[in-house]
Amino acid sequence: MRTIIECVPNISEGLDRERVGEVAAAVAAAKGVRLLDVSSDPSHNRSVLTFVGDAEGVRAAVRALFDAAVPRIDLNKHRGEHPRMGAVDVVPLIPIRGATVEQCVALSREIAAEIASRHGIPVYLYEDSASSESRRNLAEIRKGEFEGFAEKMKDPKWAPDFGPGRPHATAGVVAVGARAPLIAYNINLGTRELAVAEKIANAIRHVGGGFRYVKAMGVELASRGQVQVSINMTNYRKTPLHRVFECVRSEAERYGVPIVGSEIVGLTPAEALYRAAEHYLRLENFSSDQVLEARLLEED
Amino acid sequence: MRTIIECVPNISEGLDRERVGEVAAAVAAAKGVRLLDVSSDPSHNRSVLTFVGDAEGVRAAVRALFDAAVPRIDLNKHRGEHPRMGAVDVVPLIPIRGATVEQCVALSREIAAEIASRHGIPVYLYEDSASSESRRNLAEIRKGEFEGFAEKMKDPKWAPDFGPGRPHATAGVVAVGARAPLIAYNINLGTRELAVAEKIANAIRHVGGGFRYVKAMGVELASRGQVQVSINMTNYRKTPLHRVFECVRSEAERYGVPIVGSEIVGLTPAEALYRAAEHYLRLENFSSDQVLEARLLEED
Repeated sequence: MRTIIECVPNISEGLDRERVGEVAAAVAAAKGVRLLDVSSDPSHNRSVLTFVGDAEGVRAAVRALFDAAVPRIDLNKHRGEHPRMGAVDVVPLIPIRGATVEQCVALSREIAAEIASRHGIPVYLYEDSASSESRRNLAEIRKGEFEGFAEKMKDPKWAPDFGPGRPHATAGVVAVGARAPLIAYNINLGTRELAVAEKIANAIRHVGGGFRYVKAMGVELASRGQVQVSINMTNYRKTPLHRVFECVRSEAERYGVPIVGSEIVGLTPAEALYRAAEHYLRLENFSSDQVLEARLLEED
Repeated sequence: MRTIIECVPNISEGLDRERVGEVAAAVAAAKGVRLLDVSSDPSHNRSVLTFVGDAEGVRAAVRALFDAAVPRIDLNKHRGEHPRMGAVDVVPLIPIRGATVEQCVALSREIAAEIASRHGIPVYLYEDSASSESRRNLAEIRKGEFEGFAEKMKDPKWAPDFGPGRPHATAGVVAVGARAPLIAYNINLGTRELAVAEKIANAIRHVGGGFRYVKAMGVELASRGQVQVSINMTNYRKTPLHRVFECVRSEAERYGVPIVGSEIVGLTPAEALYRAAEHYLRLENFSSDQVLEARLLEED
């Protein structure tokens, strides 16, 4: 598989296993993609599907996803802790190998047009696909949620990028967009002082004056008697793991606190780890072509 | 591809591109393997093929390799700088994923039996497959080379593990064996003093009292005005890159010399890099299953 685009759609069903299974099966049956993971969160009443493929495959799988999810999920009956505006709530497209952000933006527009014409669902382009700065942030688009969208869309400012001027009766609206791979990365500190984790989180995150592609907060790990800087790395190519790790180490030292460990939650592109190895081992002229497993994927 | 065994046979032909191409094509056509690389060294008059597959695939590819190489390479006419004893000189089998050393040892015995019966070529098992300690080291087996083998084999100590008691008239003898993946790893030092690189090489290598799975020597990099500790990591799981790197750093500091960079020559298993990232980022509970690309290979 030379070109790998990752797609991690969130659907508003996390309780009915059968229904989630049917949607997942439809995606898995699409040609040119591989379904890697399905995670359901019952309290959120929400599921995340992870699949990969080339542009053609991803397009076919998203079509299959909507064809299966729209008749099965009625947002009028949906209750859950997580904010949501659509039966398929959000469709992120992530370039992993052999594809650029620009190509994923183009793909997002094609997919958006197809969803709008095929199902009559309004589509908002977000993140790197956004048509204006105010639509970059998914949380901004989602404000008001399903129940508030008919009213929200009366404001011309919230006319959708594709599709009709009012929400679909049962499936609401959807956000589609290209974004960089996101890595959930947590760093555990050898102290019980939550304030230390919170100060460090504020130091490293973009809104606090820190790194451009870091979101972070302090979290208590009561069972371990430790605290954690919980981080979303929104672009590991421009803000790499090791740079954040070393910054946290330096900030923690100022409080006499050691880093006891770190963890990657869920999946990461291999490249994020290669870059850490490259940095610390001071590798010269390293290329991922030198990795045996990467060669295997090339030859696919 | 769940099971990945790497095979990197060395053949005694590095000048005649057509002949090398024919042998490579035969390997590539075998079912269940992928040929990843062919490197020919004209001054050595020797080529290295790299292919991967499961046990069945590797067996078929080695069969195809001998069927193609034996009629094409006559050692009586072979001249080259590199010592050699066979048309196919050595067949290393390396467990990469989903296979153990023990399985590769078993595979090496099956392959050895087949080469002996199919072509009448004497086979020596070496490295982890060796039938005695004195046969572990390939250089020991190869002593005397093609021209000296008829005489060498008269000594019962050098009776082959499989096949007849004298070398094949044109194809000589061959060594087959399982071994851990080898990584060629060089560390460059900010000094022109070759003696510093030599002392450090001696400190880290097994024969000098250093790490169990390290071979190393000092090398001059005249064009860079630097010296290099040139390393063969013969088992990166038991002696990982970062430990050797940190040891070289500490030894170099004693001479007031910095590490200016390092390099991996050729291919490396991804795991060797993951381990470096894991060490320096202090990752807890990391598993290669968390790597997106690794998932793709699983699903193959």
